Amino acid sequence: MSQLEAATSAFKALVGSDYVITQACALAAYETATFYTDQRVPVVVLPASTEEVRGVVHIANRYKIPIYPVSRGCNWGLGSRVPVSTDNCIVDLKRMNAIVDFDEQLGYITVEPGVSFRQVAEFLQNENSKLFLAMIGGPADSSLIGNALERGDAVGPLGEKAKYCCGIEAVLPTGEVINSGNEAFDNSLTRRLSKYGLGPDLDALFYQSNFAIVTRMTFWLAQKPEHFQVAVFGVRNKEELHRVTVSMRRLQQQGVIKEASYVLWNIYRFFSAQFQYPWDEGGKLKSSPDKLLEHLPRVWRDIRWIGIVGLYSASAAHARADKKMVLKALKGKTSRLFVIDLLKARFAHALAGPLNKITGMNITNAINTLYFNSVFLGHPQRVTAMYWRKRMAIPSDLDPNRDGCGLYWICVSLPFDCASITRLAEIVEEGSLRHNLEPQYMFWAANPWSLKSFIIIMYDREIDGEDQNAFNCYNLLCAQLHHAGFTPNRLGIQSMKSVAPDQQPYIDFIQRMKRLLDPNDILAPGRYDFRHRWRL
Amino acid sequence: MSQLEAATSAFKALVGSDYVITQACALAAYETATFYTDQRVPVVVLPASTEEVRGVVHIANRYKIPIYPVSRGCNWGLGSRVPVSTDNCIVDLKRMNAIVDFDEQLGYITVEPGVSFRQVAEFLQNENSKLFLAMIGGPADSSLIGNALERGDAVGPLGEKAKYCCGIEAVLPTGEVINSGNEAFDNSLTRRLSKYGLGPDLDALFYQSNFAIVTRMTFWLAQKPEHFQVAVFGVRNKEELHRVTVSMRRLQQQGVIKEASYVLWNIYRFFSAQFQYPWDEGGKLKSSPDKLLEHLPRVWRDIRWIGIVGLYSASAAHARADKKMVLKALKGKTSRLFVIDLLKARFAHALAGPLNKITGMNITNAINTLYFNSVFLGHPQRVTAMYWRKRMAIPSDLDPNRDGCGLYWICVSLPFDCASITRLAEIVEEGSLRHNLEPQYMFWAANPWSLKSFIIIMYDREIDGEDQNAFNCYNLLCAQLHHAGFTPNRLGIQSMKSVAPDQQPYIDFIQRMKRLLDPNDILAPGRYDFRHRWRL
Repeated sequence: MSQLEAATSAFKALVGSDYVITQACALAAYETATFYTDQRVPVVVLPASTEEVRGVVHIANRYKIPIYPVSRGCNWGLGSRVPVSTDNCIVDLKRMNAIVDFDEQLGYITVEPGVSFRQVAEFLQNENSKLFLAMIGGPADSSLIGNALERGDAVGPLGEKAKYCCGIEAVLPTGEVINSGNEAFDNSLTRRLSKYGLGPDLDALFYQSNFAIVTRMTFWLAQKPEHFQVAVFGVRNKEELHRVTVSMRRLQQQGVIKEASYVLWNIYRFFSAQFQYPWDEGGKLKSSPDKLLEHLPRVWRDIRWIGIVGLYSASAAHARADKKMVLKALKGKTSRLFVIDLLKARFAHALAGPLNKITGMNITNAINTLYFNSVFLGHPQRVTAMYWRKRMAIPSDLDPNRDGCGLYWICVSLPFDCASITRLAEIVEEGSLRHNLEPQYMFWAANPWSLKSFIIIMYDREIDGEDQNAFNCYNLLCAQLHHAGFTPNRLGIQSMKSVAPDQQPYIDFIQRMKRLLDPNDILAPGRYDFRHRWRL
Repeated sequence: MSQLEAATSAFKALVGSDYVITQACALAAYETATFYTDQRVPVVVLPASTEEVRGVVHIANRYKIPIYPVSRGCNWGLGSRVPVSTDNCIVDLKRMNAIVDFDEQLGYITVEPGVSFRQVAEFLQNENSKLFLAMIGGPADSSLIGNALERGDAVGPLGEKAKYCCGIEAVLPTGEVINSGNEAFDNSLTRRLSKYGLGPDLDALFYQSNFAIVTRMTFWLAQKPEHFQVAVFGVRNKEELHRVTVSMRRLQQQGVIKEASYVLWNIYRFFSAQFQYPWDEGGKLKSSPDKLLEHLPRVWRDIRWIGIVGLYSASAAHARADKKMVLKALKGKTSRLFVIDLLKARFAHALAGPLNKITGMNITNAINTLYFNSVFLGHPQRVTAMYWRKRMAIPSDLDPNRDGCGLYWICVSLPFDCASITRLAEIVEEGSLRHNLEPQYMFWAANPWSLKSFIIIMYDREIDGEDQNAFNCYNLLCAQLHHAGFTPNRLGIQSMKSVAPDQQPYIDFIQRMKRLLDPNDILAPGRYDFRHRWRL
């Protein structure tokens, strides 16, 4: 009996045969991402508790089998559920989906890794809560813990998840369970209310790392605003972009725009979020991306970027003051500027028919997405953009892995200034067009100091040669962005082998930590450990 | 030649004899805190650069001599400059006082450990900057880096220092220099603008730890507000306290009160911040603390707690809206409520004479402290409270160590709710009074989830028996607070030996890290390593 067979038997004895997957077709789904991968997954085990996770870790050590945890596996564009290296057993945590604790008054929720953004949103709705959880732009079925541990971002108050959570329960690769922050004190009144505990902050080691399997975490929740408004505007050229960027940074410095409440999309990204590619007859590409823009609703046709700002105000007077400052900051510097409040949103709903005709857009949808069921207020969205380049109709049950949706995300940070924005735009536009792909990117302002940019490559995996073309484009963009100083803040599985900090002592430090914590190298080998620069 | 003598010679060869202190009287100052200590300091070395710090670390390893870094040594009430364990050589970093980088537009400053809060405030003033650095309540000569690494707190925007800094340069106990976050990338545009880098967050290990000597760090700066107001109010009883607490939490949840902008002082703390103890003839204590309160200005005499809120507003309309909500939230729930804006502050200045008579207070001072030179706007304050119980007049050059000022700080976290506030108050009041000491404590609201409380014991070290009495009081309060679930968030040197998280795997983790990073155990042994629970 091989080591793998022995481990599989042990997994079955631990969690029951029903929760160990070994059938080829079921495993194939775990091996499929939104881009080409060749990693094989020999077995998937689905533990139901922290104790079972410990058992899995012990088995992995006993048989020297690498294991790779996924929470809900919705890491689309960055690797889905596929491990960084081949022949890892996947530990799928989706059965651990309990909401462990919730406090309306103090404003927190404690969850297991299988709990999704959608589940929390529905839970809060059922509780008639005055709180909400900032929603990710990606799939609402994503794991809250998985997203936070990747330092993922959500829209609106407390959107920078890693800053507004605490108290990690983690199973170390050697099987010990540790509770970080004030959870390390048995009777602490603030175990779910304080970011830091006493002494060094061990929590921080479990973000973007392969040092532990996180099995529980607490997230703080935002208050629904008394008044909510959303401002939308178009930017036509670099001059406008410069003036807008200065204004938006200033408004964020002043606190008029809150953390994580401003996004700027380029026009192609805006397009792909709402439509599928307008194929020529016979499913052919348009001759050039410029022609594509002719298919935009006329109202947006001279626009290169679209900005959206969520405004959260404590009273009607605050809402008026906020609106006034935003209008003053943007007027004359942008085009198609409008601010939607409750009254206007209702009005637009009532007049949807004629407005649809004038704008060429589905106004009811737009108003719902921006206002009534706004992602800015924590409402789960149906994200379909990954079907942009597909010839098929968008299915009701979205599964980009299964449906051959090609998707790469590139996540980088940049200073909150216009020079950086335009340099990034140039690189992405030139590189994407050279590969006959629409340049798609957006910016997200967590704070007034730096922006995060999400650059997206979308294609159809079922077309011959497209996987290779997209990979070439991805590599070119990564190399040029890195060369220009746009540092990645999150990696897809394929980049774990090609990107690393420059400083060797930093990498050595991580290497020493990994050896200490995981002497048998069983946990997610290669994940954020910059292993191509060193050997265990 | 002993190991110590050899190390001392090596230190002299490294930094020059002028920067190695071995004279008994100079060393005695380093051995003196604001409470009883018996640690001996055999030598102090003052390196001038990161390279010299590396040299010191190498020497310490060669001769197996423990070293203990201090930045500016103003950790009053928590140990001043005294090491946790005896016979540590102090590495005094005060010569490394360069402001390395500053960016007005993006809003950051990069400093070495010898840079003080006062130095940054003066630098920004000379630059005519629109930015300010949130000021600590303690001495303005404290090190910015030292304070941040202790997760110290400052008043007003970006007051929670540990959240608004990045890019640590640190010398490891084995002599390697690492640069964390995006400083680990040679050409990153966001090396001073992004909290997190790529991969696990090593930064976090250097807060409240003995894992490295930090030699450089970047801090983000706040914008001076367009409109500033300060609200002051008195709270007479528990019923008022409950209603005030609910209101203040709500205002902070709504964003009307910003992070770190609300403090609540008990009346004794308010008293000690402004006066010295009103001794009876012959320097005798009043018979009871109740009698002491008769010496308060009449206007405050029925008040038990005093709340102060800084309001930062982006426009006149915002300022009016903020004021309205604060007044609405507090009216009828508090006593002596007033809001000072620029107009009122000027008015009070003009009428200081008659107002002084009515209130029995120095109104000019009060208005300056609250408004024109407000700690809420980053102005350095002259903090003299540690002379409260001294019979001597307050000297112009404050030095509580030299002057025998007795001072203990106890720092704990608690939920932002009234039950926790009143329970803490009971413990502190009962324990302090039992030791014939004024109960002194304050609360500080970093966020709407939890408060930090600072409990202060002040006495005169020159009176026989007072050191022991204060130590007894300190131990009693610590034990009772801990028992009631108020977890410490920062420790004085004497508590490093008596407080630890309950969970053994957590402590084991720190032990393993320490062994890994500091195999010769040369760096600040005992500091936040919970060593009384384990042995290297």
